[in-house]
Amino acid sequence: MQVLFLGTGAGIPAKLRNVTSIAVKLLEERGAVWLFDCGEATQHQILHTSLKPRRIEKIFITHLHGDHLYGLPGLLGSRSFQGGKDELTVYGPKGIREFIEVSLRVSETHLLYPLKIVEIESDGMIFEDDTFMVMAGLLDHAVSSYGYRVIEKDKQGELLSDKLKADGIPPGPIYKDLKAGKMVHLNDGRIVDGKHYLGPKKPGRVVTILGDTRPCQKAIDLSKKAHLLIHESTFNRGQEEMANQYFHSTTNQAANTALLADAKTLCLTHISSRFSKEEWAELEKEAKEIFPNSTIAEDFLELEIVE
Amino acid sequence: MQVLFLGTGAGIPAKLRNVTSIAVKLLEERGAVWLFDCGEATQHQILHTSLKPRRIEKIFITHLHGDHLYGLPGLLGSRSFQGGKDELTVYGPKGIREFIEVSLRVSETHLLYPLKIVEIESDGMIFEDDTFMVMAGLLDHAVSSYGYRVIEKDKQGELLSDKLKADGIPPGPIYKDLKAGKMVHLNDGRIVDGKHYLGPKKPGRVVTILGDTRPCQKAIDLSKKAHLLIHESTFNRGQEEMANQYFHSTTNQAANTALLADAKTLCLTHISSRFSKEEWAELEKEAKEIFPNSTIAEDFLELEIVE
Repeated sequence: MQVLFLGTGAGIPAKLRNVTSIAVKLLEERGAVWLFDCGEATQHQILHTSLKPRRIEKIFITHLHGDHLYGLPGLLGSRSFQGGKDELTVYGPKGIREFIEVSLRVSETHLLYPLKIVEIESDGMIFEDDTFMVMAGLLDHAVSSYGYRVIEKDKQGELLSDKLKADGIPPGPIYKDLKAGKMVHLNDGRIVDGKHYLGPKKPGRVVTILGDTRPCQKAIDLSKKAHLLIHESTFNRGQEEMANQYFHSTTNQAANTALLADAKTLCLTHISSRFSKEEWAELEKEAKEIFPNSTIAEDFLELEIVE
Repeated sequence: MQVLFLGTGAGIPAKLRNVTSIAVKLLEERGAVWLFDCGEATQHQILHTSLKPRRIEKIFITHLHGDHLYGLPGLLGSRSFQGGKDELTVYGPKGIREFIEVSLRVSETHLLYPLKIVEIESDGMIFEDDTFMVMAGLLDHAVSSYGYRVIEKDKQGELLSDKLKADGIPPGPIYKDLKAGKMVHLNDGRIVDGKHYLGPKKPGRVVTILGDTRPCQKAIDLSKKAHLLIHESTFNRGQEEMANQYFHSTTNQAANTALLADAKTLCLTHISSRFSKEEWAELEKEAKEIFPNSTIAEDFLELEIVE
């Protein structure tokens, strides 16, 4: 589970930072990549990575501002052109369906895979399967902007082979069933419960990715004890009034949310091109003074999510 | 008058060629830039040039396939964000209005300049003023695809100062009126006609930019004696059957159109990423064997249009 930043800028593309897109790589976990936002030229950024568009299983759009959205039709089309056949689901605020459908219809783009579009209507769980769950919550921005909490479910413990041997259960195909926690009928007549031979469950990881927002309680709720919180930081310390006016956050406010949420790490993104490359370290420092485990994102930065 | 290629690829973006966009620089002629097509990340390409988005006065879309269109909403928004105030007109096939209006509305992009959208309904003149004229003609593609003939009007001849002196008309403010071809009342009572003191008119230049197309008579008509013909070349010599099937042209067919139209120069573009960089010279050679004044475009190639 890694997070790869494809675009970390704000508002309009700049030479050093493209507009927003974040890939959550779940290749080991589910052979898939999930994308969060898809600003213009996200597919161009992908050309410079090892990501395969056909691996993209889900795209979550936080809000419909162009710098988070306008790369979507091109990526959807190219994924088909490049042979993607598996279903893709796009989640986003109301309006995402009209944008996608009109863009594809007007350009006569005929996708060769099933496309599902889910317009989020209220806070809560928007996806769940055996291994992952995603919660959405409405933040505080000029337009409907969602935060997404990606929850990896607790994983099965390891099979306790020493205990199995001690109980006289030799290795063999039945180990697979035991590992799955099933009841197994042994050759010697015993019936044993796999659950008794599993170590403690491994807690799953949590990554929270927030759309553009002012500081708000929902941001904290979505980020509770997250292994990684990705938070916008369009302004720096002291610009709280400007941030409020434009429905954005400062470095300090992002760090404060991470602190209040008791997150493990924080990554600042959505960095305005008003800040020169020389100032990036200063932005990071501002956050670190409040929340020490802070980093500032750059395009193509990849973070491993550790338990 | 220069032509700057911002994207010269076909279908999907590649590392070496972005999807289609061509800037016709009319900075000396009218302080403006005209854009032909606007594939995704055209605004990103512009970041690597000296072009100013606020200078873009007109955008002509040849057809609505995504690789010619999807960069439009982002560019329109950024032009406003960066302080563009002057009216901008977008021309294109039916459907362009819906795409622009939905994209801007859904993303709540509020342009701070007047945007005019002209949907082309039939062949003929779509723009004319004192210095330029643009003709549109429907080509032969899978969707409605237009070619544009940009015609610079013949320019006023130079003022013949030797002849003026010989006729005893001394330099002074009246030279301005004479140069404009007006009748002027001299101090000595004579009335003279400026037109008698002007050299021959300078013929204007013609640039023809065709959308994706199979070879067709309309392509030839639009390109008649053009100083520069920009023609797609998605396939190479020998792939005529494939080209026909996908409504495209080969190197040979592009060159043949230039020859039949008696164009002065030809530039091939819309080059598929199936062709490696090493093969580009071969594509150019194929065209040259039919039409010697041929070149192949690359991203950021700039051509001066000579009389």
